[in-house]
Amino acid sequence: MAKDKGPRRPRAETPKGFRDYFGAEVTERKVMLDRIAAVYHRYGFDPLETSAVETVEALGKFLPDVDRPNDGVFAWQEEDSDWLALRYDLTAPLARVAAQYRNDLPTPYRRYAMGPVWRNEKPGPGRFRQFYQCDADTVGSGSVAADAEICAMLSDALEEVGIPRGDYVVRVNNRKVLNGVMEVAGVLDPADPSKFEHERGIVMRAIDKIDRLGEAGVRALIGAGRMDDSGDFTKGAGLSEAQADVVLGFMSARRDTGAETVARLRELAGGSAIGTEGVDELEKIAELLDAQGYGPDRIVIDPAVVRGLGYYTGPVFEAELTFEILDEKGRPRQFGSVAGGGRYDDLVKRFTGQSVPATGVSIGVDRLLAALRAKGRVEADTRGPVVVTVMDRDRMAEYQKMATELRQAGIRAEVYLGNPKNFGNQLKYADKRNSPVAVIQGGDEAAKGVVQLKDLFLGAKIAAEVSHEEWKSQPAQTEVPRDTLVTEVRRLLGIA
Amino acid sequence: MAKDKGPRRPRAETPKGFRDYFGAEVTERKVMLDRIAAVYHRYGFDPLETSAVETVEALGKFLPDVDRPNDGVFAWQEEDSDWLALRYDLTAPLARVAAQYRNDLPTPYRRYAMGPVWRNEKPGPGRFRQFYQCDADTVGSGSVAADAEICAMLSDALEEVGIPRGDYVVRVNNRKVLNGVMEVAGVLDPADPSKFEHERGIVMRAIDKIDRLGEAGVRALIGAGRMDDSGDFTKGAGLSEAQADVVLGFMSARRDTGAETVARLRELAGGSAIGTEGVDELEKIAELLDAQGYGPDRIVIDPAVVRGLGYYTGPVFEAELTFEILDEKGRPRQFGSVAGGGRYDDLVKRFTGQSVPATGVSIGVDRLLAALRAKGRVEADTRGPVVVTVMDRDRMAEYQKMATELRQAGIRAEVYLGNPKNFGNQLKYADKRNSPVAVIQGGDEAAKGVVQLKDLFLGAKIAAEVSHEEWKSQPAQTEVPRDTLVTEVRRLLGIA
Repeated sequence: MAKDKGPRRPRAETPKGFRDYFGAEVTERKVMLDRIAAVYHRYGFDPLETSAVETVEALGKFLPDVDRPNDGVFAWQEEDSDWLALRYDLTAPLARVAAQYRNDLPTPYRRYAMGPVWRNEKPGPGRFRQFYQCDADTVGSGSVAADAEICAMLSDALEEVGIPRGDYVVRVNNRKVLNGVMEVAGVLDPADPSKFEHERGIVMRAIDKIDRLGEAGVRALIGAGRMDDSGDFTKGAGLSEAQADVVLGFMSARRDTGAETVARLRELAGGSAIGTEGVDELEKIAELLDAQGYGPDRIVIDPAVVRGLGYYTGPVFEAELTFEILDEKGRPRQFGSVAGGGRYDDLVKRFTGQSVPATGVSIGVDRLLAALRAKGRVEADTRGPVVVTVMDRDRMAEYQKMATELRQAGIRAEVYLGNPKNFGNQLKYADKRNSPVAVIQGGDEAAKGVVQLKDLFLGAKIAAEVSHEEWKSQPAQTEVPRDTLVTEVRRLLGIA
Repeated sequence: MAKDKGPRRPRAETPKGFRDYFGAEVTERKVMLDRIAAVYHRYGFDPLETSAVETVEALGKFLPDVDRPNDGVFAWQEEDSDWLALRYDLTAPLARVAAQYRNDLPTPYRRYAMGPVWRNEKPGPGRFRQFYQCDADTVGSGSVAADAEICAMLSDALEEVGIPRGDYVVRVNNRKVLNGVMEVAGVLDPADPSKFEHERGIVMRAIDKIDRLGEAGVRALIGAGRMDDSGDFTKGAGLSEAQADVVLGFMSARRDTGAETVARLRELAGGSAIGTEGVDELEKIAELLDAQGYGPDRIVIDPAVVRGLGYYTGPVFEAELTFEILDEKGRPRQFGSVAGGGRYDDLVKRFTGQSVPATGVSIGVDRLLAALRAKGRVEADTRGPVVVTVMDRDRMAEYQKMATELRQAGIRAEVYLGNPKNFGNQLKYADKRNSPVAVIQGGDEAAKGVVQLKDLFLGAKIAAEVSHEEWKSQPAQTEVPRDTLVTEVRRLLGIA
């Protein structure tokens, strides 16, 4: 017979696709974000913190690859009232703020924002439904100087968090050039922009996949179609060979210098008014960045940059880390993209009816942090506290006093507050906390006015390297007068 | 006839009860939280960041004054799956984490957490549905030394953010003493704890309101009942005069020193086993704190502290700011409570079936920040960037170069990126940004190799104090060689 179990207990689990961050995971991210914020601040950007919750109507529907209403977001209905949802990025709330406070904000409005966003997607390995974004945008300036500034700032931010020059590149392109090429290739009719929309979608997605598919694969996709390794067939955009040549010529237009690339693009897209406008903008951006000293070792014009989001209207940019890491199968591969952005001149218009130019960048916080970890460049003090052990429960006040003295000297310290009966457990606890020093004072030591200091880092090193006999001589433990506690602990910690 | 308006535009509004935080509002809070985090860290506490979303079953129902399921939280159902909700505090997620990772976490586990929480309540003036909490808890220690440590740490945190000693007090009580008094007063039967539950609820709420109702009001509420000024009658707990004397005697048991208060409490609750246990605990806490130098100028035993939440099982504490501010009607009143907490030994048990002792504190971030603002103690650099104005659109690259040079010298700087046609608008913009210095270089200055520096703070001061003639002589504006830009701006900013 089944035992009567009483009411079922709640499961102690995060919801699927959510996770917890402990200790150094929290502080390492904080250190990185603080540094990025300092760069943004230096460029004149002000912080903005909107709430996690927005009305569904204000958020709009700008998530890629999502068709049904409220798909991709976490949403619920207020009693007899609005549908609310968790923000899925930091750009949609900015557009709402820019419209709501348009009479109070300075123009242009430079703002940065950092915080979690939520996506109601199928969770997968390393893919979470809550993650951080870190954005900077300029609203209200149509000048390409604003785009150039964002690229320079992104470059500074990457170096500030510890990605050295040469290990990254900011790649810049322009949607207008892309549209010009489409026009020249005959899949964009300026008189009827909605014509060939389907074909252009296929071409854009194909360009975005060139790293994976290679030139032949892209050519197949923008032509008749492509059969993948498994035998599945993807229908293509149906462009002729001559049309495909134009598109592929564009993608391989990158030259050694910005000026040369611009010259080549002018040849390719010169037949289109919008294309020429885009090339002029790229040329201007390259000039501005050159004048500020941001040369092709940091920022390059690269026609292969597309960026997925539909709302970009002009310059687009992407920061890529160029060093290699090993993938899950141990093969070396480039780390890849950690930030991207571009100009989107129509987002605020949704609210006000008036076009407001805007441009900005979003850094993928978790990916950048993973890159820093892969390069051993995270900086966070993971050292645990000095642990004052408890040999004699009745003298708890004295142990607390020791911890207080250490803290007042700026040293991280705590008294062991578990069950003190088993002293071995106290040292195991100190070990688990990554504690550098244990302070020990039993009755004998108290009577003599001394404490024992155990150097746990040295102790661990000795235990790993020396024989049992040597270990027993305990060179990692020293007896010092009680009133020199702070001085001696400072010495062990290497604080002058 | 009405004009055809096309599709309705979305409203640019935050949902009701939510708000945006701009510029200094964000950085001032960050500075405060960073300082509190530094204190928590020094005490050996580790950061924990859980996600905003939890399953409803893991969150449980611990919000006060809420009856219906999911009432008070923002909740929604996953497709054919769990109900999810936004966390309403940081304690419920900690209980879940402590249960989920119980085999991996150190015991005791000291953790701090800072972040927004959400309450689905009727918004009111100054009452928002998303707000910050800042908690520190020790899970897995039943020792009152853990409670004492939290009180000392709270005291340190308040001083660290800028509340001077004397302007705050941490008040400590113990639920067990309160229960002992209830037992002596005849409204708690240790053999049948559920008996008199209703009456005890009325008594607890009455005690909590003594500041507002006075002793007579409390006496009425715990007796037959109380008629308020409007004529409304609240039914009382029905205690006799003799029973009421016990309760009121307890509430006024606070004496000048902890030892005297403890002695008085022992007289009052000595007839109850649980009461005696509570008095012993208070005595121990007072001893520990005294030994560490936290005397009654910072932390006091005060029997009038109740704390609303039902889940406290032992020591409870509250931090109160004792200085006066003016209320909305201009009357002076004490600022009041900014933090509170206590021991809750049953929260983790919900998940595991095993009792896990825990104690902690939660700081009301917005209230503490309001207090610091009221006292003029917030520290955040609200100075805007140096604004490089644009006199000549064709020399944008040169203006950007100036801004870059300033930034590389660590000076916050930006180029004006709005429409440069109207120079007055550029100065208005600089004013709105609270910019200290405007840099001006027209064609003449460029030819001469100079720039004009306009000290905007001095300019504003002069404009307010001097005549139009004096103002026109423009002492706030100086011409300097272009190659001394950085040096001269540093001089104006007062950077040595």
